[in-house]
Amino acid sequence: MRLVGCFLSLLTVFGPAECGNVLVWYTEGSHWINLKIVLETLIDRGHNVTVLVPDAALFMKAKESDRFSFQHFSVSTSAQDMQDFLDALLHFSVYEMDQLNLLQIQMKFYKLASKHQDMSISHCDDPIYACSDIVAEELNVPLVFTFRFSLAHTAERMCGQIPAPPSFVPGAMSKLTDKMSFTERIINMLFYLSQDAFCIIAWKPFDNYYTEYFGRPTSYCEMMGKADIWLIRTYWDFEFPRPFLPNFKYVGGLHCSPAKPLPKDMEEFVQSSGDDGIVVFSLGSMIDKMPKETSNMIASALAQIPQKVLWRYGGEKPDTLGANTRIYKWIPQNDLLGHPKTRAFITHGGTNGIYEAIYHGVPMVGIPLFGDQPDNLAHMKAKGAAVVMDNIKTTQPQDLVDGLNAVINDPSYKENAMRLSRIHHDRPMKPLDEAVFWIEFVMRNKGAKHLRVEAHNLTWYQYHCLDVFAFLLTVLIVVLYVFFKMCKFFIMRCCFSSKSKTKKE
Amino acid sequence: MRLVGCFLSLLTVFGPAECGNVLVWYTEGSHWINLKIVLETLIDRGHNVTVLVPDAALFMKAKESDRFSFQHFSVSTSAQDMQDFLDALLHFSVYEMDQLNLLQIQMKFYKLASKHQDMSISHCDDPIYACSDIVAEELNVPLVFTFRFSLAHTAERMCGQIPAPPSFVPGAMSKLTDKMSFTERIINMLFYLSQDAFCIIAWKPFDNYYTEYFGRPTSYCEMMGKADIWLIRTYWDFEFPRPFLPNFKYVGGLHCSPAKPLPKDMEEFVQSSGDDGIVVFSLGSMIDKMPKETSNMIASALAQIPQKVLWRYGGEKPDTLGANTRIYKWIPQNDLLGHPKTRAFITHGGTNGIYEAIYHGVPMVGIPLFGDQPDNLAHMKAKGAAVVMDNIKTTQPQDLVDGLNAVINDPSYKENAMRLSRIHHDRPMKPLDEAVFWIEFVMRNKGAKHLRVEAHNLTWYQYHCLDVFAFLLTVLIVVLYVFFKMCKFFIMRCCFSSKSKTKKE
Repeated sequence: MRLVGCFLSLLTVFGPAECGNVLVWYTEGSHWINLKIVLETLIDRGHNVTVLVPDAALFMKAKESDRFSFQHFSVSTSAQDMQDFLDALLHFSVYEMDQLNLLQIQMKFYKLASKHQDMSISHCDDPIYACSDIVAEELNVPLVFTFRFSLAHTAERMCGQIPAPPSFVPGAMSKLTDKMSFTERIINMLFYLSQDAFCIIAWKPFDNYYTEYFGRPTSYCEMMGKADIWLIRTYWDFEFPRPFLPNFKYVGGLHCSPAKPLPKDMEEFVQSSGDDGIVVFSLGSMIDKMPKETSNMIASALAQIPQKVLWRYGGEKPDTLGANTRIYKWIPQNDLLGHPKTRAFITHGGTNGIYEAIYHGVPMVGIPLFGDQPDNLAHMKAKGAAVVMDNIKTTQPQDLVDGLNAVINDPSYKENAMRLSRIHHDRPMKPLDEAVFWIEFVMRNKGAKHLRVEAHNLTWYQYHCLDVFAFLLTVLIVVLYVFFKMCKFFIMRCCFSSKSKTKKE
Repeated sequence: MRLVGCFLSLLTVFGPAECGNVLVWYTEGSHWINLKIVLETLIDRGHNVTVLVPDAALFMKAKESDRFSFQHFSVSTSAQDMQDFLDALLHFSVYEMDQLNLLQIQMKFYKLASKHQDMSISHCDDPIYACSDIVAEELNVPLVFTFRFSLAHTAERMCGQIPAPPSFVPGAMSKLTDKMSFTERIINMLFYLSQDAFCIIAWKPFDNYYTEYFGRPTSYCEMMGKADIWLIRTYWDFEFPRPFLPNFKYVGGLHCSPAKPLPKDMEEFVQSSGDDGIVVFSLGSMIDKMPKETSNMIASALAQIPQKVLWRYGGEKPDTLGANTRIYKWIPQNDLLGHPKTRAFITHGGTNGIYEAIYHGVPMVGIPLFGDQPDNLAHMKAKGAAVVMDNIKTTQPQDLVDGLNAVINDPSYKENAMRLSRIHHDRPMKPLDEAVFWIEFVMRNKGAKHLRVEAHNLTWYQYHCLDVFAFLLTVLIVVLYVFFKMCKFFIMRCCFSSKSKTKKE
């Protein structure tokens, strides 16, 4: 799924292995952070890595320090188009969305998604650099997906054939948990149904593109379903337990690593916090500035807590900034979260940041902004490791202070964060090693067909056995009909013979 | 499930770990072979292992060489009762079953199962040594199951909550594959439904026993569902890919190991086979003798092939035994299968033997006898690694010769066996290590609740969202009803006003 919020990046891998060649389809934003670590490990293990990047890419710029080769290709959209689109999406998500009703949000989202889709299709238009699954098909090489989720798990369900009973598997982005009331289960069901309908409409242009390209009826979903391995960037520390398939591998937190020492002046500031410790605060790489009243609200709240605060912020210094708070243009977030003085993490709820907090066992205060962030934080809240604000615009200083006091002073939050950390670390294999293992597996074995369920070759009514039920029901009805007819016949005969007998008498 | 053919053995594990105490519920037959290896590894890692054995146990006899302590407990059934039951079951399965119709088989099987159940319940009757899940509940310790399957996956589906769409997940023992025709899907559906009904009836005595024991309504299934980890003794080399759950771990083949050198005289016999190589032949530990005509049929077939044959057989020497065939009371099966001269394996299709063949990449000729063997061999046939005889009684010498010639001379069988072997070996962790990891995990973490799906807390109609559908359907009907009523009202009004207008005019 290449719709915004669906967070898919693609890896096309080809053998023969020992030292293989890995072809990588472009990705944007924080997904690149994750992918890069996997690719660097592959290079360390002797593979060649080539990344296909459209000219319009914003994040995947070639840097001299990078050890893999970037292969650029021209597309009809420009980087400016891409940036404009991203700005429009961010503005809509953070500042407009809560003033609209559900239908308006859906309409606006569809409009934005259509725009993104046009840009995505333009990336397929070059005769050499087509879409990643087309590349895999054309080169006859195995295909590996790596992503966090698709909206309401539509791609995983419809194309990957993963089972997801709406009664206990909340749709991604629904903010629901696995424990749902009757009303919540109705909401989840409607969410699934509406997103399925949305995707069927939204994927139509891709279906047409693919059909035209291959010269035979080919759907977007069918091509996605050919992937050998789906590397999902969560695990059961973050995700609610749910059914899955042998070719779905949960490698969440693969970018996490032990904390490194802090820069000297930062370490001094952290140490100056004494027993109270520190609070780490970042709203992620995409939100660098905020309206003055918002930053003042936040700064005034932070000024009220006894902890020292390290705040990653690119905007103007707020008037209400307390003596305990320092603003940094950039912070070594993972190293700070792994510092023994860290008591809490104020986060927008991006998956990468949440995973660093889970890795180091730090409780969170969430200020969700857009995309999957409210949903991510709903997971952390349900697992007892976070307090979550409703909205950055409606949050009052006291809410933030109360939230911070709760996660710092109520031991249950720290205990739950540590429990998630234990779950994260106590697994048979590190997530990065597992991701690399399965990429190398498809290189060694030319795919992983033995992990692909037969469900891919069934129609929806076959999958749900509707044809079988229809047949059994028909048989049952015919049997009952014949039975009743025969009963009637014998009863009639019985009555008739007794009547004729009476007559004769 | 403690019904014969369901192959369940139970492990009750309790912490605190580093060096923990492991309490093991008894098991019989070839299951003990698997379990023992896991237990020995646990002892090697510093844990204490105590095995609870009823006096009536046939296989789990204390031996001096064993490093774990057996704790015996008295039951009202004797070892002789147990042996009689087993003999009756074997006789029924191998020699009676094919002369009966399906209903007769089901009735007879139900009678045998009831007898086994009575014996099982008698094991629970002692006030100290109750059933394994009761022990876990009473001691408040984590519970680990390890087994191969339950009939039609009933226990895994109904109690473990594993999803199993009948459209592509063949019921265990059905002899079906994941690729089913319309007719086969009907058969699979009926198999699921009949076994569900069978289990609901057959589990009633356990439900009653559990309810009485706990003094509150408690079902057998509910108690099984409390297991932290289900160690399933298959993997995707043997099993068809299917949906599963985070607390289901597939550890098939954990008993396999590299081949050790053969005894000197055996090695000389094997080497004497030259380029033709050898065939290894065993019908497992439970069938030691067979009728003279059967052994003569087999021996005359084996005499016709150019390979040397090593046959594990405890009965009288057949008259037709060829010069190329040697009979042994016992063979080092794993070492023989791993020998470079081995060309084929004639097997009854027990899981342990099949896994040894997969481990070493040896194609098979199957002569299924009873229990899960026909189903196991159907898997190997579907994966192209075996030729399977219908039945030991109807097999003609030429069938066996043809089967052996096919798997030895048609390279596809060897290729497929080697492919399964690659799948078996090329996994992130060895199955024995994985089994031990998860047992130690529940000891370290006092369970694995984070892997247990919420489905356990839903009713069947909630799980399938039937209440949600009923509600949505009601809303739809009401809305449509009101809509049509309003339409009718306005149309009537419209007509009426136009009529009255006409009248006035």
